[in-house]
Amino acid sequence: MNREAIYHRTMLPFAYPVGEHELRLVLRAAKDDIYFSEVFYGDRYAEPGSEVSTLMRKEASDSLFDYYTVTLYTEEKRVRYFFHLSDRREDIWYSEKGFSVARPKEGLFQYPYICPADLFSEPEWIRGRTMYQIFPDRFCNGDRDNDPEGCLKWGETPKADSFFGGDLKGIIDRLDYLADLGIGVIYLTPIFKSPSNHKYDTADYYSIDPAFGDRDILKRLVSEAHRRDIKVILDGVFNHCGKDFFAFQDVVKHGASSPYKDWFNIHSFPVRAGKDPNYETFASGVYTMPKLMTHNPELREYLIKVGEHWVREVDIDGWRLDVANEIDHDFWREFRKRVKAIKPDAFIIGEVWHDSLEWLRGDQFDSVMNYPWREAVLDFFARGEIDAVGFDERVAGLRMAHSSNIWPGLVNLLGSHDTARVLTLCSDRRRAALAAVFQMTYPGLPMIYYGDEIGMEGGDDPDCRRTFIWDEEGQDNKLLNLYRQLIKLRRIFPHLSDGDYRTWHTEGNVYAYINDGIGVVINNSDEDISLRLDNFTIHRTVDILSRKSYGLGRYLSIDLKPYSAAILLTERDYEKMREAGAC
Amino acid sequence: MNREAIYHRTMLPFAYPVGEHELRLVLRAAKDDIYFSEVFYGDRYAEPGSEVSTLMRKEASDSLFDYYTVTLYTEEKRVRYFFHLSDRREDIWYSEKGFSVARPKEGLFQYPYICPADLFSEPEWIRGRTMYQIFPDRFCNGDRDNDPEGCLKWGETPKADSFFGGDLKGIIDRLDYLADLGIGVIYLTPIFKSPSNHKYDTADYYSIDPAFGDRDILKRLVSEAHRRDIKVILDGVFNHCGKDFFAFQDVVKHGASSPYKDWFNIHSFPVRAGKDPNYETFASGVYTMPKLMTHNPELREYLIKVGEHWVREVDIDGWRLDVANEIDHDFWREFRKRVKAIKPDAFIIGEVWHDSLEWLRGDQFDSVMNYPWREAVLDFFARGEIDAVGFDERVAGLRMAHSSNIWPGLVNLLGSHDTARVLTLCSDRRRAALAAVFQMTYPGLPMIYYGDEIGMEGGDDPDCRRTFIWDEEGQDNKLLNLYRQLIKLRRIFPHLSDGDYRTWHTEGNVYAYINDGIGVVINNSDEDISLRLDNFTIHRTVDILSRKSYGLGRYLSIDLKPYSAAILLTERDYEKMREAGAC
Repeated sequence: MNREAIYHRTMLPFAYPVGEHELRLVLRAAKDDIYFSEVFYGDRYAEPGSEVSTLMRKEASDSLFDYYTVTLYTEEKRVRYFFHLSDRREDIWYSEKGFSVARPKEGLFQYPYICPADLFSEPEWIRGRTMYQIFPDRFCNGDRDNDPEGCLKWGETPKADSFFGGDLKGIIDRLDYLADLGIGVIYLTPIFKSPSNHKYDTADYYSIDPAFGDRDILKRLVSEAHRRDIKVILDGVFNHCGKDFFAFQDVVKHGASSPYKDWFNIHSFPVRAGKDPNYETFASGVYTMPKLMTHNPELREYLIKVGEHWVREVDIDGWRLDVANEIDHDFWREFRKRVKAIKPDAFIIGEVWHDSLEWLRGDQFDSVMNYPWREAVLDFFARGEIDAVGFDERVAGLRMAHSSNIWPGLVNLLGSHDTARVLTLCSDRRRAALAAVFQMTYPGLPMIYYGDEIGMEGGDDPDCRRTFIWDEEGQDNKLLNLYRQLIKLRRIFPHLSDGDYRTWHTEGNVYAYINDGIGVVINNSDEDISLRLDNFTIHRTVDILSRKSYGLGRYLSIDLKPYSAAILLTERDYEKMREAGAC
Repeated sequence: MNREAIYHRTMLPFAYPVGEHELRLVLRAAKDDIYFSEVFYGDRYAEPGSEVSTLMRKEASDSLFDYYTVTLYTEEKRVRYFFHLSDRREDIWYSEKGFSVARPKEGLFQYPYICPADLFSEPEWIRGRTMYQIFPDRFCNGDRDNDPEGCLKWGETPKADSFFGGDLKGIIDRLDYLADLGIGVIYLTPIFKSPSNHKYDTADYYSIDPAFGDRDILKRLVSEAHRRDIKVILDGVFNHCGKDFFAFQDVVKHGASSPYKDWFNIHSFPVRAGKDPNYETFASGVYTMPKLMTHNPELREYLIKVGEHWVREVDIDGWRLDVANEIDHDFWREFRKRVKAIKPDAFIIGEVWHDSLEWLRGDQFDSVMNYPWREAVLDFFARGEIDAVGFDERVAGLRMAHSSNIWPGLVNLLGSHDTARVLTLCSDRRRAALAAVFQMTYPGLPMIYYGDEIGMEGGDDPDCRRTFIWDEEGQDNKLLNLYRQLIKLRRIFPHLSDGDYRTWHTEGNVYAYINDGIGVVINNSDEDISLRLDNFTIHRTVDILSRKSYGLGRYLSIDLKPYSAAILLTERDYEKMREAGAC
């Protein structure tokens, strides 16, 4: 047995409560190395030796490891536990003190007490919903009177500093389009007053940019969205401000005597707010975006009040937080508390591109933009860098990197305003469609970047920020219908979000899996395939994409064209889709 | 290379800032498996490929793993990094995405930004100090007028419910003894009003138990201690209260209509406050200790105000927190903030007997009672269950389980009011003395349980709570002198606390190590030994225990009697000890 590969520690993501009396444990072992793993557990105050055992399940495998999991019920909420592993040649015991050849009596793992205040769960409403990201200047121009000067014509190729006149009124005008598509959440990149088209350089956190509208129009947008059961999430940029922010301007004007000087990290006075800035900025020397020192108590209070304000005043449903990984954890803890005190089911998403466990411990964010997941998806569907086995291992590793409590909320995206579009990265439209099939049948909260659903293309920023094509002639109607069907599927089976996910089959570029009792087979190859799979259900099934039926029996034989997929529902579930007009 | 053994994740205890511009990284690998490990690092916003490398140091090894460490200086405070490992047969690269055979370009580890608010350090004053735990009823009776009824005679064998009349005045009377011993912190088990001798069943958090004194006497104790540069730490019991606590009595009286009913978890009314209680308690059914529901906002505020009160009113220097592991993390975060707002260098110690990383992340406790360390020490010095190699591995594993920021504060104890005494567990007085030598020359904050220094014996509770032997005839003067010398050594070389620790030699039951430039050799065997060690310094050295001198040269030859030790200081350092009258 590879003992060095075996890992468990009483902390995230290896031990955590999933309910008032339920503790989930994860044990990692080398791949295909052990035959079984069981956990012995009991009340921490019960007699030593009274622990009982239960078998763990091999839930997932990545390239190096198998992950064994179990959820224990504990009446007393205080658990003492240890593991027993066998590879059929040797038996070992594993406790907090390490390995032993005999059942350990002391030095056991301890989950001391499941405190109600330590419990974490995602807002209930996120399940089954699909999010839609809007870059307001480029989505729809609903009010020509507020267009910025020098606007380009809708449809022209955007440059870094182009404006097109999209606005909040435009979004209101298109809410029926989004509702018809099935969208359940819209996320708008920043809308507060700022000189740029992207508005990540906030000038005034309390004003809507006049080119986008005003507070009343935002209020109307939110209430019209809510009327259609669409949640609204805004983008908060608290890592840095724009150079026009009043506090920064005060420091520029008054130097060291400004009461706001400690809101920034100014290396010397006077402030040089231009090329080669003498203050800390976002990234490297972006002088238009002075870095905010969020440990300053006054600034902190100012920014958190912004977070409260828009929830209270306009009834938004959450925040997406820009460059959230460069702000201190304590700021986010306080931010979460204050926002949730106003709206307990507000949804808080941090922008963290890399390993994000330190922000997803339950005390800070509900979610992050799941870019590592996007990388895996692109490696398989767009770049062909990994096969189905490699892809399955990558997404499994990413699931196991977090507590299962977090899975339903992770924002799984194929692209954003910061990346090239998925269709452009895929050499083939069919592959982009497969990526969407995967996205919409995978645990988490899928996010569509505006226009991906109609087949919009675009390379790296600014090309990925083209104006939405509203002329139906320019839209990929087949792709749009696929998206519409997939989004409905998710609405009807909201537990697709949860993570009851199992690998079904991997073979070359063919990947099959079962999520919440729905079987998905993806042929990500340029060949016709005929598969004989172990059936995943005892019921007859129907593929919602081809409407083909499959019979009973131990095996399920399925033929798929190149770059196509099947989504298999039991007949009863298929009936639900039909009733909802989704088949 | 055993890839499954290699572990790093951008989180505690593998990546954390140790200064505004300093990031410490730890990489774990299988023992003796790799030849070198280097880290490539650079600013997160710098050009990919511009990372520079530095070699890591093999800092410690436990039974299965080697730990490679490095501290990086980062001007920009934002670090992108990855590792390069070689075992001389193969070279591999390790990034957030996993292993690769070529230098990785993306998917690198990211420490996004060292936020000043995320920095953690122990209060500066703990370095070099030794803590002393007092069980007030048994330490010294300074005021016979406040003795509880039915007090036993000082020196009698204690039973679970015995009282002996020790009090705060008694502690004041003995402050000179403690100051002479060199003690820098005293920690008192609970002193608030309560019916028991141990007072872990608080009746009134705002009153001193009359048998111990009153608020004025406590104030005098604190100011007299401070006058001798002795800090004072009190014991806070917030997991449960005593059954006489006003709020619980109100619920007993008024049942479901009591405004305090949600401070507890009452299963049914009326409350059955006796055998087989119908409410949640400490441990299993201890009806005299109702469990407090710290997620209740009013209760939480009540308890945190208690925490604030005694710091503000009486100027105590910190809290030791009872059953701290069964209270929610958010409570402790708030507790820390509020207490530190009054006294920024207050010291907060949680009672956590098992793996305590989840409380030692910087946002909750400064320290825990280090019971896992005690277990290792007893296994080596008392029980003889492990040899020097095993012991070295155990303590190394415990160090590497935490961030190095935490090491100076960890309360290393040989025993407490909850355990048998170290002398009783050792079959030999000399072995107990060796355990003390180790305790006092190891990183952390050593804690002496009252009377251990004079050779008091005692089995499990209540026997470990005997009255202090003030009659010098009954004291082990040799042991006391050793303690006095060791405590002084620590005062004079406060960086012994920090953790610049290196294994020097392990052979059978002989263990040698170097801490902060001081060499320690421990012969934990019943045989005379003659060792020839690689010298640890280029200077002449003196053993402070035997006053024997050692010359220059590559080797250091040393003879040690059974169960004896040498503490080797350079001549210059030895001079410091002499000047302080400690040699």
